[in-house]
Order: sequence, then C-alpha cells, then structure tokens
Amino acid sequence: MISGKSSLCISAEEVKTLLREGEICITVVGLGRIGLPTAASFANAGAKVYGVDINESVVGTINSGENRFVDEPGLEDMLRKVVKEGKLHATLRAEPVISKSDFLILSVPTPVLPSKTPDYSAIRTVSHQVGEYMKSGTTVIVESTVGPGTVENLIAPILEAESGMKVDADFGLASAPERSDPGNIMKNLTSVPRVVGASNSRTRDIVAALYEATFGVEVVKVSSPRTANAVKLTENLFRDVNIALANEFALLYEKLGIDVIEVIKACSTKYNFMPHYPGAGVGGPCLPANPYYLIEEALKVGDIPYLIRMAREINDRMPEHIVELTMEALNEVAKTVRGSKIGVLGISYKPNVKDVQLSPIVSICSRLQEMGAILKIYDPLFPAERAAGFDVLDSVEKAVSNSDCILFGVAHEKFKHLDLGYLRSLSGNRSAVVDACHLIDPQEAMKLGFAYRGVGRPRSRNLEVF
Amino acid sequence: MISGKSSLCISAEEVKTLLREGEICITVVGLGRIGLPTAASFANAGAKVYGVDINESVVGTINSGENRFVDEPGLEDMLRKVVKEGKLHATLRAEPVISKSDFLILSVPTPVLPSKTPDYSAIRTVSHQVGEYMKSGTTVIVESTVGPGTVENLIAPILEAESGMKVDADFGLASAPERSDPGNIMKNLTSVPRVVGASNSRTRDIVAALYEATFGVEVVKVSSPRTANAVKLTENLFRDVNIALANEFALLYEKLGIDVIEVIKACSTKYNFMPHYPGAGVGGPCLPANPYYLIEEALKVGDIPYLIRMAREINDRMPEHIVELTMEALNEVAKTVRGSKIGVLGISYKPNVKDVQLSPIVSICSRLQEMGAILKIYDPLFPAERAAGFDVLDSVEKAVSNSDCILFGVAHEKFKHLDLGYLRSLSGNRSAVVDACHLIDPQEAMKLGFAYRGVGRPRSRNLEVF
Repeated sequence: MISGKSSLCISAEEVKTLLREGEICITVVGLGRIGLPTAASFANAGAKVYGVDINESVVGTINSGENRFVDEPGLEDMLRKVVKEGKLHATLRAEPVISKSDFLILSVPTPVLPSKTPDYSAIRTVSHQVGEYMKSGTTVIVESTVGPGTVENLIAPILEAESGMKVDADFGLASAPERSDPGNIMKNLTSVPRVVGASNSRTRDIVAALYEATFGVEVVKVSSPRTANAVKLTENLFRDVNIALANEFALLYEKLGIDVIEVIKACSTKYNFMPHYPGAGVGGPCLPANPYYLIEEALKVGDIPYLIRMAREINDRMPEHIVELTMEALNEVAKTVRGSKIGVLGISYKPNVKDVQLSPIVSICSRLQEMGAILKIYDPLFPAERAAGFDVLDSVEKAVSNSDCILFGVAHEKFKHLDLGYLRSLSGNRSAVVDACHLIDPQEAMKLGFAYRGVGRPRSRNLEVF
Repeated sequence: MISGKSSLCISAEEVKTLLREGEICITVVGLGRIGLPTAASFANAGAKVYGVDINESVVGTINSGENRFVDEPGLEDMLRKVVKEGKLHATLRAEPVISKSDFLILSVPTPVLPSKTPDYSAIRTVSHQVGEYMKSGTTVIVESTVGPGTVENLIAPILEAESGMKVDADFGLASAPERSDPGNIMKNLTSVPRVVGASNSRTRDIVAALYEATFGVEVVKVSSPRTANAVKLTENLFRDVNIALANEFALLYEKLGIDVIEVIKACSTKYNFMPHYPGAGVGGPCLPANPYYLIEEALKVGDIPYLIRMAREINDRMPEHIVELTMEALNEVAKTVRGSKIGVLGISYKPNVKDVQLSPIVSICSRLQEMGAILKIYDPLFPAERAAGFDVLDSVEKAVSNSDCILFGVAHEKFKHLDLGYLRSLSGNRSAVVDACHLIDPQEAMKLGFAYRGVGRPRSRNLEVF
C-alpha cells in the first residue's frame, strides 16, 4: 500500500505520480476478457498488480506470461512484459493480496440466469471476500456491469457488513464500468472515455485520475455509481434495441420484396441515421444479458420498459428464423433438413472473436441437429477444436464438400474473400445457401444455381415490381 | 416540353445541358414546405417551372414573390429571384401546365387519419389529375412519403387508367422521396443525398441526373420505387423508435433517481452510440405519421412490427406524462391545475420552426385547459398570433408574470439564454416549473425556490444515494 497515506485522501495529482513511481498496489478480481487486459494495463502504467481468479489454469497461464485471448491484438506483448518484470502476479488466494492493496477492482462476470434475471452470485461472493479482507483506506472500484443501484444497495451493504467499516469514512466505493468490445479491448481501453461515479466526489476524482493516468483516456465524471451503471446499460441497450429494429425491418422487408441491406446502406447517407444490421440474433456476454439488469430494476419500481423487453424477444427469435430460411431454401431443392448435410461457416457469437457465449449460431446448429441435419462446421477461430459441444473442422472445404446447404453464420474477415463459384463446385448438386450475416451477393448466388435465402432479402422471386 | 424528344429517351448528360439551357419544363404539384423550395430550386437551376396548388392564397403569395415560410433560411431570396425572372409561376389550374411538362413532381401531403391509417386522398386525387392531362413522354416523380408499394400498386394503376398509357412504354415513373427537415430545407436539399428508384433503370438514371444537376447532391440509385420509399420510412422510423427509447429511459430513470440527460451525454462519448433526447412527444408532418404507412403495408402481409408500433404508443403518451409532471409540481406548492396560471413557453412542434402540426405542446395545452388552467402562451414564432386555436402572447414577460407554473415546452433558440432568476422574480409566490425540453438546470431551478419537475429527471428528492 501507499506508504503513510490511504487512497482516500491523496490528491488526484499524487495518484499519477505514485502510479508512475510504483507506489500504488492494485488487486483485480476476475481475470477474464476484461479483467486481464485491465490488470496488465495497470501494471504497465507502473502499479504493483495482483490478479485474483478462481480458475487454477487461468492463474497458471498468466504467471507463465501466456495470453489465452489470442483474438485481442496488443494483449500478448503487454502481458509478457509485465509478468516478466514482476509487475503482475496472478493468484488463487485473495486474502493476502486484498489486504495490501490500495485499489480493489471487481471485474467478475454478471451473466443472466435461464429465468432471464441477473446472476449476481459472482459479484456477491467477491464482495463478501473483499469486505472481509480489505484494510481501512482502500478504494473498491466496480467494473462489472450491474443494474443501477446495485453498487449502492447490494455491494455497499455487503462490504460494510463484512468489514465493519463505513463507505466514505473508511473506504471508497466507485463504479467505472468497462465499455469495451471483445476483439478490440486493448484499443478501446485507451480510446473510449471512461465513465466514473463514486460515493463521494473526492473518491470519484481519485479514481478518475487513476484511469486517466493508466489508460490515457478522458474520464467522464458522473454524479453517482447508479448513474455510471445506467450509462453502461443505456449505451448497450441502444445497440440491442437498434439491432432488434433492424431485424424487425428485415423480417418485414423479406415479405414486401425489399432488400433490407440495400435500404440500410441508402439510409446511411442521411446525417441523422446510424446503421445497424440484421442477422442471426445477438450473442456474447453483454447485449443479450444487459437488458435484464435494467428490467429487474424497472420491475422493482413498477415500470415496464416495453421497447427494451420487446427488442430482446425479437433478437432471441432470430435463430429460429434462420432455421426457417434453411428449411425453405432446402425445400426449394426438394430436400428436408433431416438427412441434409449442412456446411456451417462460423460459430462464434460475432466476427473475428473466439467466443461462443450465447452465440445464435450455436442455437441454430442445435436446432438443425435436433431436426436430423448432418452438420459440418468450420470456424477459423476454432480449427479442429470443440466449440459449444460441436466438433469444428479445420477447413472451409471439409465443411462445404458435398453439402446440401451452406449456411453463412458469421462474417469473419477470413470469409469475406471466399469465391462463391468455388464453393458451388464443392457443394452437392441441387444445393442451397442461407446467408445469416449478409456476406454474399444474392444475385451471384442465384446465378450460380444455389437456392438462396438471406435475412432481410426478398423471400419470393414472384413479387411483381410493377 | 423538350423540343423533339421525350424525357424517356434523353441521356443523363443531355438532362444537365437541357436543364441549364432552359429547355426542360417541370410542374410541381403541391406547394407546401417541401414543394415550394423544390419548385424554386428547379427554376433556379434553369428549368421552366409551374407550381400547382389548390389554395388560392398560396398561389397568389408565390406569384407576388413572397415567401410564407419565414423559418426556412435561403428560401426567400431564391423565390423572389425565380419569380421575378419568370422561371416559376404558380397556378390553380393543373391541366394546361401538366400537359406541357417533361417532369411532373408530386409533392402533396400524406398525413394520417384519426384511425391511424394513411390518408392517401391527396396523392390519389393528384394522380388522377396528372394521369388525365399528361402527354406521352412525361416522367412522373413521387416525392411525397408513401408506403413501399404505393407507387407501384396505387399510383401507377391510376396513372395508366386515366391516361390510357403504359408505364415505361409511354411515361416514366420514379420515387425520389424528400429527406428534408423543416427549418433546414434549403440546406438539406443541397447536402443530403437523394434516393431515387424508378420503374426502369433508364428513367432512374434520367431522374438522378435531374436531381444531381439541380441540387448538386449525390444520388443513391436503388432498385425500385418501393425500395426508395422503404429507405425514407426506415430512416424516419429509426428516429421515432430512438426518441421513444429515450422517452422509455426517461420515464424509468425518473423513478430510479437518475438524470437521463446526464446519462445520454455520457453515453455520447462512446463511438457506437447516437444520442436522442426525451421530451414532450413527437410532432410535425413526418415522424408521427410515417410509421403508419409502413404498419399498413405490414398488416397487408400479415406482419406486426412490434417495436415500431410500441414506439408510437410511447411517444403519443408523453404529453400526458408532462401533464402529470405539471400536476405533481403544482401539488408540491399546494396548488391544483384548476385555477392555476400556467405560462407556457413554446407551442410549435419543434425548436425554431413555425409549425404546430401534431405538436405535443398543443395536446398538453388542451388537456391543461380542460382541467381548468389559465394558460398564458408565448412562442417567438407566433407573437400575438393564434396558433392551433390558442392565443399566443407577444412576450415571455406576459406569459410568465404572476404565474403559478412555468412550462418549458420547446427549446427555441431564443429561450436558451433566458435568465431563470429573472423569471422567478416575475412569477408568483410558491411557483413551479416543468421542463419538457431539458432547457433549464434542475439544480438552479430548485435553488431559486421553484418546485421543479423535468422529463427524465429524478422525481423524488428522497432517493438516498447511499
């Protein structure tokens, strides 16, 4: 810990100097896709950093300087450097490192339960642990995404009860929600302004100075932790609702004989429009979960956020729609899903990221398999690996050869230059393509003789223009 | 008409030359807020332009070179110039001018009926008239906002039946929906790309050339009129849905003790967020009407656009919410709406535009008056005039003096520098303010002793932060 001073009463300017001089000690709890880059960045900025995780192999990997997030450019080099320099050390044992830290950063997952309610079990457990071991003068910073009010009404009481100390008087408490996008974490950490709200303005300014000095980003100071958490949820829900709106347009325009991708591109020429694209649904750790954190808080005060709720339903239903399109495309070549060989290209939840958490393509694969399809999956991020319970092949060719249907699931960079004519030559006679990620040109697919269906593309060729 | 050639078979390059040389004759049907600037612009670019309207005073005003849209910068000078040069002539009689025009531009209103279904009566009437009088070789361009398919399935059949001619063979048909924003029409016309879809690609290219040459804007060519109309609706519905989402957040955050304006501003620091603000609702000729054009087409194919529909409900309910906030604020100073003097600042449907079409503030005023309030309305765009059946005063002072409540309705530029302390000195003892357009600082209002309520601002001061 900072010698002779607590993180509660240093000045913002002192934070920067102390950080550079290696006088600040930080523990990051939770070394996942956000926690690990965060820990590495603090170490890189000069802090003595401990990382706590419950997973033994995660801890071991880090301490050997290895990076398990191969899809995060920039992380590997930084990680190797700070581990080698002894600035970052990972551990399974929270107690000794928590008690000597000036700042405790909570970066554990906050997923949703199958009942579509927030699962705060990890943040709860960690709060108990932190409360038990932290010393007076420490500042706790919550980076995990939580509903507004959760820091004030769930985390603060646990910390106070476990520690016997009081917020503000004895320890600081702040929210600094991560605003990063998997696949771009290192870039986002140093370019997206950080939003900080705290239990009092002094703590807020100290935490702001710590993040400014570490990441070189602007810090937006807001009036409370609940406001900071509302910011995080509002910006993510904006995306979820707008993707749902794009999906709603897609479903309608399919029936009206209009190409939604053509429409969205044309709309994008207007200054007050922001494009969002339809697809197979919404996956990953954030968008499909975040709305339920806000919905839960809303229900507590008797409010029903209609649009937010409806958007979830629409996005959750998209995998089923892709299955329908697949059945329809196969039907056009007089085949059933049962017994058809389907080459699936891409299984991760979004392009260029090695993550299948709540991936809509996984839902689609499960359903197609249930219906009797023979799946041949390829994803360049999982070559010859298992992903979400499926075997992934190690080449496009193996997935596509002799297939009855090619399903474009994820628009990975590596799929962008695939030659559709070549795929046609590999696939079986009378074959279909389904495009869930607007990766291929419908006209070209049809010219090549594929039975074609794509999300938001006219479903019937019989629609008269005039 | 162009001597010796029809607008169907000239080249795109020829269009530009002929336009400059004054060889092209255009009739614009409907001389409203869009039609008039459009007619003036074509005349200014070199065309011989006729404007047709059913309103005698509109026609008279134009022919005397007068501009009735005082809130459209740039229109007055252009209008005076083209009328003086004899390039633009307005008339009540459609027949003689339609029969000698190369291009017929339909720019009539397409509002909604009280039943929330599109009112296509004007576009229908005008289509009959144009079909009856137009000569072979003419191109009809629909600028009015209509549902996708309306040009193909409603307008085209009327034109063919009335004229005895065939689309493509005898006359051209295109959609080039206006994408302008009242108050900025002249600027938008020359900066926002124009979207053009037509019955065939030749007509599309000719119409594109005409708009490029006239407005100097990029033209986005799309595959059909239905696609062009889908573009127009999609971009406006994006706005309506996102304003509804902002209102949904506002209503929730009021209850959760979070300031939605603070949240939206902080969210705006993220690269993939676009700010929309909550308010008293959504008015004007476009946003509250456009969704119903798409909803009607959706219902025809058995589709329910949930988000689009829900967004309308939310936005339509906002005036009622402002009335609730007004009751609540007055209640705080122990007053009822009945008998209270309420100074309303702003009555138009949006800032800086002299238009009360479907203005949510009008709904609010009607409801407050029904409840027995004594309204004192001021709007700098309607000084000492009548607006939507209400008398508008000619100064802020007259509206605010001795009031029990000041209601900020519209964030007109002129209201941005009002001194709240001065307004406090004018208003009565124990007075309230309600801010429907996030114009004033809540803290300042409360410090001055006002009972304060604002859309999306914490409703109760009793919410404990910790």
